[in-house]
Amino acid sequence: MHTPTDAAYAAELDAADELASYRDAFVNDEPDLIYLDGNSLGRLPKATIGLAENLVRHQWGGRLIRGWNEGWFEAPERVGAKIAALIGAHPDEVLVADSTSVNLFKLALAALRASGRPGVILSDDLNFPSDLYVLQGVAELLGGRYPLEVVPSPDGIYGPVEGLLERLDGAAMLTLSHTVFKSGYVYDMAALSRAARAAGAITLWDLSHSVGAVPVDLEGAGADLAVGCCYKYLNGGPGAPAFLYVRRELQERLRNPIAGWMGQRDLFAFGLTYEPAPGIRRFRSGTPPVLSLALVEPGVELLLQAGMERLRAKSERQSAYLIALWEQLLAPLGFTLNSPREAARRGSHVSLGHPQALGIDLALIREFGVLPDFRAPDNLRLGIAPLYTTFTEIHTAVTRMQQSVVERRYEKYTHEAPTVT
Amino acid sequence: MHTPTDAAYAAELDAADELASYRDAFVNDEPDLIYLDGNSLGRLPKATIGLAENLVRHQWGGRLIRGWNEGWFEAPERVGAKIAALIGAHPDEVLVADSTSVNLFKLALAALRASGRPGVILSDDLNFPSDLYVLQGVAELLGGRYPLEVVPSPDGIYGPVEGLLERLDGAAMLTLSHTVFKSGYVYDMAALSRAARAAGAITLWDLSHSVGAVPVDLEGAGADLAVGCCYKYLNGGPGAPAFLYVRRELQERLRNPIAGWMGQRDLFAFGLTYEPAPGIRRFRSGTPPVLSLALVEPGVELLLQAGMERLRAKSERQSAYLIALWEQLLAPLGFTLNSPREAARRGSHVSLGHPQALGIDLALIREFGVLPDFRAPDNLRLGIAPLYTTFTEIHTAVTRMQQSVVERRYEKYTHEAPTVT
Repeated sequence: MHTPTDAAYAAELDAADELASYRDAFVNDEPDLIYLDGNSLGRLPKATIGLAENLVRHQWGGRLIRGWNEGWFEAPERVGAKIAALIGAHPDEVLVADSTSVNLFKLALAALRASGRPGVILSDDLNFPSDLYVLQGVAELLGGRYPLEVVPSPDGIYGPVEGLLERLDGAAMLTLSHTVFKSGYVYDMAALSRAARAAGAITLWDLSHSVGAVPVDLEGAGADLAVGCCYKYLNGGPGAPAFLYVRRELQERLRNPIAGWMGQRDLFAFGLTYEPAPGIRRFRSGTPPVLSLALVEPGVELLLQAGMERLRAKSERQSAYLIALWEQLLAPLGFTLNSPREAARRGSHVSLGHPQALGIDLALIREFGVLPDFRAPDNLRLGIAPLYTTFTEIHTAVTRMQQSVVERRYEKYTHEAPTVT
Repeated sequence: MHTPTDAAYAAELDAADELASYRDAFVNDEPDLIYLDGNSLGRLPKATIGLAENLVRHQWGGRLIRGWNEGWFEAPERVGAKIAALIGAHPDEVLVADSTSVNLFKLALAALRASGRPGVILSDDLNFPSDLYVLQGVAELLGGRYPLEVVPSPDGIYGPVEGLLERLDGAAMLTLSHTVFKSGYVYDMAALSRAARAAGAITLWDLSHSVGAVPVDLEGAGADLAVGCCYKYLNGGPGAPAFLYVRRELQERLRNPIAGWMGQRDLFAFGLTYEPAPGIRRFRSGTPPVLSLALVEPGVELLLQAGMERLRAKSERQSAYLIALWEQLLAPLGFTLNSPREAARRGSHVSLGHPQALGIDLALIREFGVLPDFRAPDNLRLGIAPLYTTFTEIHTAVTRMQQSVVERRYEKYTHEAPTVT
C-alpha cells in the first residue's frame, strides 16, 4: 500500500479520476511542464484553435461587416448566458463586456448612485488590489458620500467576517472577492449577502478566482451584483473580456455610467439622446473585442460538460492532497500554509509562504519545470485547475519545492526582481 | 479618349495608382464583392492570419503565462506608439486600451475634473451618437457643473464652426469627431484647437473616421486629448480595442477615473492604495484583451508603409471621382450629395441621400454584390479605404446604384427594417 508521499499514490488518484480525460481537451506543448498557474491564465482548449481560425479567416476575412448580423452582435449575451449556468444566475442576468476593473467600476458606480442612502463602501484588505483601486476612484468621484472602508483580515488568510458584519449597518455596499486572490479563502456568499440585505447594503462580488473552480449560486445567495474574469479557470485567453451580473430586479433601476451606444435601446436609429436598452444589454458600453470575446466560449463549454459539482469535488481532493504533502514534506523546511485548511473555506489554489519564496519561485521556473505564481512578498501560489491538473503534477511540484530548498537552489535568484507573472 | 463615366477611365486610374499593390496585402474571398464599408470594418490583412495563429497556438497555448513577459504586457504602448506616427503624436502619448466609448469617458471625465472652471461640454449634433451618450453620462456624473451643449449643424453636412466658436467662451471642453460619421465633414483641427485653447477650453477629438485615411497632426494642431477606433481604416478586426492620446504636458495632471491595476505605478507590489503610473500607462485600467489588441499591429504597419500623404492623395482622388460620377449618373435620379464638395473638408467616405436609400442599400447588398453602409433615415455611406478600394469598384458601384433606381429594384425591400450594418 502506498502512502501519500509516494508518486505511485498520486498515480492511483489520477487513475481513479473521472475527469482525467478533460486534460486531453487542452493544448500541452511541454508534457514535462507542471503548470500551476491556470488561476492566472488558463490553458488553451484545443477547440479554441479552430474557432480562432474561423473567426479571423472566415468570419472577419470572408464575411466582413456581415459578421455583425451572423453572431457577433449577440456574442456578449450568448457567452454570458453560458457563464450564468456556472454561477447560479439566469441567462439574462450575465453579459461579457470590458475588463473586470471596468465592469466593477460600472456596477459599483451605478448601484451607489441609485442607492437611497449614503454609507461606506465596505471591503477587506484581501480583496484584489485592482478592485480596491477602482473603488477608491469610485469613492472619489462620488465626492465623499461613499467612502471606502477596508476591513483588515485578522491573519492575512481568513476574511474578516466579524469585522464586516459589525460595520454593515453603516454600509451602502459590501464588495468582496468571493475567493481571495492570495490565500484562496472563500467567503460564505449566502450568509454575507443575507446580512448585507438585512442591513440595506448592496452586494457586489468579484468571482474572478471562483468561476469555473468554486461553485457559486448567486440567486440562491441573494447576491445583487457580480463581476469576474474569463482568462483564469474559464480558459478564455489572455486578457479575455470579463463578465458582469446584475440581478433581474435591479437591472431597470441601474444606469450604466459609461453610456455607450451598445447599451442604447435602438442603436441604429442614431438618436442623439441616450435611452438605455431594457435588460442586461444596457450594461454594455462600446463595441466589444469580438475575437477575444468569442474565444471565451469553448472553455466555458468544457466546464459545463464536466459539471461544477464534479470539478469542485476534484479540486477539493487535489488541494487537500497538496496540503497533506505540504505538511509532511514542506512544513519541516519552513513553508507555512497561507490558505485555509477547512475545505469549505478554501478555493482552488493553495498559498505557501517561505522567507525565500521569490528565489524558490524562480528556481522552480528555471530549473525544475514548475510554473507557480509568486505573490509578493513571500507567497507561492499553486493553482489547481481541476479540468487539467493531475495529482501526479501536484506530487512532483511538491517534491521539487522540497528539493529546491534542501539543495538551496533558490540562492542564486534571491536578488532578482519579481517578474510579471 | 475615355470620359469619367466609362469603365475604361476607371481602369486607367487604377493602372496609374502607385498604391494599387497594397490591395494584395488583404484577404479577398469574393473578388466580385464591392466592399465600400472599410470605414465600418476594415478588411483582414493577410499578415494578421499568421499572427493570430501564432498568438493563439504558440503564445497562449505554448508559452502560457510567460507570454506576459514576452510582449503582451507592453503591447498597449507598443501598438500605441505605431498609431502615434499616423496622427502626429509622440510615441509616448498614445495607448491602445478599452473601447472608444470607454476611452472617451475616461479622458472627458479626467480632464473636466482637473479643470479649474465650470463650463459647458461643447459638441455638435454631427458627433457620433455614442460620443454624445457618453458625454451625457459624464455630465450627469459631474452633477450639472459641466452640462453638454450640442450645437446643431446648419445643414446636417457641415460642422457648425461659427456656432462652436461663438460658444467657446463658456466652454470647459470642446469635443468633436474630427471626421463626422455621416457626412464625412472634416473639421479644421488646428483652427478649432487654437480657438479652444485661447478660450481656456480643453480639446478632445474623436479620430475614429480619420485615423488611417485623413492626415492628423495632433501636436501641430495643439490638440489636448483624442480617442479613436482601430477597426475601421486601421484594419484591426471586429471590435478591436481603441486608442487614446493624451498630450505629454497633461499626462501627470490627469487622473484616470477607472483606476485599475494596469495603470498602477508598481502593479506587482499589490499595494492597497492606487498610485498612478508615470506617463501614458496611467490611462490603462484593466487587463487588455491581448489577442484582439495584438492584431491591430499588422494593419497599422501597412498604413505606415504606404504613408499617410500618399493615402490621403489617393483617397481625395477617389472621393472626387465618386462625386463626379454622382453628378452625372445619380443626381438626375434623385440622389443628393450629403458630403462636402470641398476636398479639404471631406474625409474618406461619401454620403449620398435618396428617399429610397434603405431599399437601395438592400438591393445593392442582395442583388448587386455591393456592400455600402446605410445610415438612417436616408443615407448611403460609401467608404473608400485607399489601401484597397479601386477606382473600378467605385465606378461599378455607382453604375449599379443607377441601375437599382432605374429598374426600381429597391421596391421589394422598402418595408424591411435596417440591419446591424
